[in-house]
Amino acid sequence: MTAPYIGHLPTGPRDAITDVAGVTVGHCTLAHDACQTGVTVVRPHAGNVYTDKVPAAASVLNGFGKSIGLVQVDELGVLETPIALTNTFSVGAVAQAQIRSAIADNPEIGRAWPTVNPLVFECNDGYLNDIQAMVVAGDHYARALNGAGVAVAQGAIGAGRGMSSFGVKGGIGTASRVVEHEGARYTVGALVLSNFGTPESLVLAGQHVGTELASRLAQTLAAPEKGSIIMIVATDAPLDARQLRRLSLRAGAGLARTGSVYGHGSGDIALAFSTAYTVPHGAASAMPAVAMLHEARLDPLFRAAADSVEQAIVHALWHAEAVIGRDGHRRESLRDVLKLS
Amino acid sequence: MTAPYIGHLPTGPRDAITDVAGVTVGHCTLAHDACQTGVTVVRPHAGNVYTDKVPAAASVLNGFGKSIGLVQVDELGVLETPIALTNTFSVGAVAQAQIRSAIADNPEIGRAWPTVNPLVFECNDGYLNDIQAMVVAGDHYARALNGAGVAVAQGAIGAGRGMSSFGVKGGIGTASRVVEHEGARYTVGALVLSNFGTPESLVLAGQHVGTELASRLAQTLAAPEKGSIIMIVATDAPLDARQLRRLSLRAGAGLARTGSVYGHGSGDIALAFSTAYTVPHGAASAMPAVAMLHEARLDPLFRAAADSVEQAIVHALWHAEAVIGRDGHRRESLRDVLKLS
Amino acid sequence: MTAPYIGHLPTGPRDAITDVAGVTVGHCTLAHDACQTGVTVVRPHAGNVYTDKVPAAASVLNGFGKSIGLVQVDELGVLETPIALTNTFSVGAVAQAQIRSAIADNPEIGRAWPTVNPLVFECNDGYLNDIQAMVVAGDHYARALNGAGVAVAQGAIGAGRGMSSFGVKGGIGTASRVVEHEGARYTVGALVLSNFGTPESLVLAGQHVGTELASRLAQTLAAPEKGSIIMIVATDAPLDARQLRRLSLRAGAGLARTGSVYGHGSGDIALAFSTAYTVPHGAASAMPAVAMLHEARLDPLFRAAADSVEQAIVHALWHAEAVIGRDGHRRESLRDVLKLS
Amino acid sequence: MTAPYIGHLPTGPRDAITDVAGVTVGHCTLAHDACQTGVTVVRPHAGNVYTDKVPAAASVLNGFGKSIGLVQVDELGVLETPIALTNTFSVGAVAQAQIRSAIADNPEIGRAWPTVNPLVFECNDGYLNDIQAMVVAGDHYARALNGAGVAVAQGAIGAGRGMSSFGVKGGIGTASRVVEHEGARYTVGALVLSNFGTPESLVLAGQHVGTELASRLAQTLAAPEKGSIIMIVATDAPLDARQLRRLSLRAGAGLARTGSVYGHGSGDIALAFSTAYTVPHGAASAMPAVAMLHEARLDPLFRAAADSVEQAIVHALWHAEAVIGRDGHRRESLRDVLKLS
Repeated sequence: MTAPYIGHLPTGPRDAITDVAGVTVGHCTLAHDACQTGVTVVRPHAGNVYTDKVPAAASVLNGFGKSIGLVQVDELGVLETPIALTNTFSVGAVAQAQIRSAIADNPEIGRAWPTVNPLVFECNDGYLNDIQAMVVAGDHYARALNGAGVAVAQGAIGAGRGMSSFGVKGGIGTASRVVEHEGARYTVGALVLSNFGTPESLVLAGQHVGTELASRLAQTLAAPEKGSIIMIVATDAPLDARQLRRLSLRAGAGLARTGSVYGHGSGDIALAFSTAYTVPHGAASAMPAVAMLHEARLDPLFRAAADSVEQAIVHALWHAEAVIGRDGHRRESLRDVLKLS
Repeated sequence: MTAPYIGHLPTGPRDAITDVAGVTVGHCTLAHDACQTGVTVVRPHAGNVYTDKVPAAASVLNGFGKSIGLVQVDELGVLETPIALTNTFSVGAVAQAQIRSAIADNPEIGRAWPTVNPLVFECNDGYLNDIQAMVVAGDHYARALNGAGVAVAQGAIGAGRGMSSFGVKGGIGTASRVVEHEGARYTVGALVLSNFGTPESLVLAGQHVGTELASRLAQTLAAPEKGSIIMIVATDAPLDARQLRRLSLRAGAGLARTGSVYGHGSGDIALAFSTAYTVPHGAASAMPAVAMLHEARLDPLFRAAADSVEQAIVHALWHAEAVIGRDGHRRESLRDVLKLS
Repeated sequence: MTAPYIGHLPTGPRDAITDVAGVTVGHCTLAHDACQTGVTVVRPHAGNVYTDKVPAAASVLNGFGKSIGLVQVDELGVLETPIALTNTFSVGAVAQAQIRSAIADNPEIGRAWPTVNPLVFECNDGYLNDIQAMVVAGDHYARALNGAGVAVAQGAIGAGRGMSSFGVKGGIGTASRVVEHEGARYTVGALVLSNFGTPESLVLAGQHVGTELASRLAQTLAAPEKGSIIMIVATDAPLDARQLRRLSLRAGAGLARTGSVYGHGSGDIALAFSTAYTVPHGAASAMPAVAMLHEARLDPLFRAAADSVEQAIVHALWHAEAVIGRDGHRRESLRDVLKLS
Repeated sequence: MTAPYIGHLPTGPRDAITDVAGVTVGHCTLAHDACQTGVTVVRPHAGNVYTDKVPAAASVLNGFGKSIGLVQVDELGVLETPIALTNTFSVGAVAQAQIRSAIADNPEIGRAWPTVNPLVFECNDGYLNDIQAMVVAGDHYARALNGAGVAVAQGAIGAGRGMSSFGVKGGIGTASRVVEHEGARYTVGALVLSNFGTPESLVLAGQHVGTELASRLAQTLAAPEKGSIIMIVATDAPLDARQLRRLSLRAGAGLARTGSVYGHGSGDIALAFSTAYTVPHGAASAMPAVAMLHEARLDPLFRAAADSVEQAIVHALWHAEAVIGRDGHRRESLRDVLKLS
């Protein structure tokens, strides 16, 4: 049985964010006893992201979150490091690792080039993971970064190892959609770190299965939404930062279709980037002359972003195996609970 | 046959925004030949809104819109006039009428009290209405205002007269939900001016009926989303402007569940206000000492806002009768097209 | 005696916003008895601004204001009408005139091209002008628009007719600065509608003259800052909307140097646009391939924006003649009060 | 010789942010050879900031910066840790220390209380400090925190140890202003980490001394503005988060008066908090019923914020002694260069 399909747009060859050419994803998973956590890295291209920056923008749907890096992304409209995902109490450690990695590649950072902007997102895996232990270290970031490739493992892996969604096991999911319009063909891909949702609210590919799920999990209907979701959207369409901000917001539409109302305690953040061009670090380099996509051509991309994000959430749930973590806490697989496989 | 019900929360007695005590709604409808338009007014309370301002905040999901008044609402966190809805090219006329009305009630406006902030939202009814004619005048605002009451007519009425949604007739819809938590009971109500959506995207109360609808309307699937939606959310819960901004954003979750991805051409704007307290105009008056709702108690209100907005959209579609307007343009009733009644 | 000079950058030939090639300015002044008001229009280029839109962005330093049009500028990053300035209670009337003017030039607006975004800013001239009378009409907008040229009259003219600043006469001021960097040469121009400031706070070109001014005007030091300022910044540098937002914010630095702390009651808004390229209305037209200015090259433009705005404020004060308006209210010329000429 | 005085408002007894009752400041300074850096902590009150949160809001004047924590402050309007300042590459390390410190005080963080939001700001001290060495560790945060008191050392100390401003030595500065209005008396205090400004731009208490300074430093006039400034504003006035955001923005007016145009490379961020009330962590605790200050009474506080920030910058320059750091880099004392003492 395969995961239910979202929408009517076709996918790219892998149904993954890596269908956007150049994008790779790597994981480092820590899974032993009460330690159920990790790091996931999205590399926007294979080169030096500091010297060849990537246009990007974010939408904060619910800012109950502890990311680092968005202030500068908002101002300058570019990424200059790979995107890292991890648990809430490891943002600082991973940010330090990103800085060290950027310096290793660009020794003038902190010298002639004063600074670099780390970019780390998080969700809280504290139900399964002993988050107080703060075990994630710089080496884990390096491993995720160095292992990045186009095949994307999903579910209880990398930063997704300890995450929960809808009362069952969540984690990493990815998907892609392809849009064609008047001869142009663009890919939109999404990768999510899914850690949100109460059981009773789950809508799975348009089917309200939440009541059934809650009944099987015997949880209270009134439990507040905990956790969070990070939604990374990539595209090869030529968009500027303002347009990417618009694209990122449509992740929220895909999220809402799974039953979320962006609960108070859920840090729901979307970031979109384009691989269509890069921005040079140094002012001595020529700026690219890019014809951006006409605004009126954005609609298919908006739908692709919403569909990719919803599909990525479905994939995270679909692929996540049961995990037992700290204090015997356990999250089942959605497919097992709903007997979907 | 009654309209399908959204979610599991109970409604107030009218399933209308006027279930929030003190809120009233009035319409002025212009319907003859190519003129199919109007004005709808939401009064937050029966008193003088200028001297007793109402806490409020907005979320712009997609800013392809021509409202007036949001800059000041964002800064000061209050309404000081009733909320007006009309067609896109009549915002200016209605704003002038709001100023005149405020001066009539408060002759010191423009004198000792320098100014007043009109607040007018719009959608574009140009498919049915000869919007170039710009016939809406100040008197129409006055009629809507003076006719405001707790019974809310829905569908092709007031500002909704010429609006379209999902390729059929849209317009005004309203709904409410009641939440109870640890002894407290709050009502959340919504009123929408629904003018958005392509036929094939329609999800009606969780049922994807868009393919069927598009087939019956024989429209192209690739038509971009036109039009817009204005979503007004009222509550009697004690919230400050920051919290109301959070509440207003959840309107976007309800909207997404109907199939919207906040299309490029759709001005999707939500405004939330609270009736729990008022803010005096003059600094000589004592400010109210209000214990706001604890942030962790917002989740039920967030769900109520999303559900009310989705229900209000369903109501707008459900109650809107077919209208024939300019150049023989015609919008059918959804219930007729889908044979739902 | 000429007005004191701000900063060390050179001006363009006119020291006016019209030094940015293509920009023109027109006024319509209403000055009789208690009617002391008007309209000022800034045309970003001589062509059809609807079909050839202009990149733009705004910064709201203090949102106690009643403009129309910023929601869409924020979302789409373009202007599609000339920029209009008028008094607070005439925004609606001028917006209606802008719509009519756009339809006259583009009859498909409201038909195949659904809509147009009017853009009107305001300050409150109610001390000198009988603002309740609401006499500004569509024809006044047309006159300002049609009279636009490169020579810019300053002071008590157009929308500036009834405005006050620092307890004396304010109004329209303009200025420009030229920056050269590694072979490139860019002009930044500003036009302000100056209606802000308490007498005691005035810093004139770095000289704190406020104490002297307040003493001569015998006003209370504790009077709150009333009024507002609109700051329009134009440049021929190739900037996108994100960069223009950054540029617009630097208007606030120039404003602060005159003594403003962005007082509560002062709607302080800056809008910046670029004439380096235009964005076509229709998606069938090719989008321009523009190499934007490298971010690290923005600093000279930032200083030019701040200096131009400060200089434009000085010019507004310098050129404004005394005006007697409603109820015998009178604003003197700064130069007369301080005996500067 | 004492530092020149800014404005006409009186100071509190210490002319420091600690004049706002309950606020304390601590430093940890690392100063040996190429290591010239440190940590500064502002404690908003003496209690447990996690269980008794402090209303707060920020304004990002120029987002070229790497802080952590602002996303959640924007959403929830509260601080829940002390405010930490350090160098750019130590934000992660200090954030980790803040988390550990919060857990030590509240062992349920990461358990029943899922999370905590660290709040760390930074400037780049890489000219004097070997910032690549990343020597700041958790213990340094603890030392700054534990040493916090009402006496605030200024200049080349704590996070200010390695900072530069206007080509001379910058660092930590603080100031306060007291406003009285109709029987109420409020204190506004500021603390800055000053690391911005080119020599030629310096305006010292209204005197343009930049040309002289640049001449003595023999630096190029066209050097771009580097570095950044963090501006913390505290008040005992009862303001909500929306009002505090307005207050924080006025820091930008004080900053502009020193000659800044918020240069491209300068991360200029202001955060304001109120000590007038606290917000309980748990929803079971009663929310405070607070009468906020009437909006029309904010003006004196706005001026106090601008004046305090400008004075704090002057103090940072005035008290900073010369420092020699990495690779023999040296920053002189402003007073020595201008022979002001």
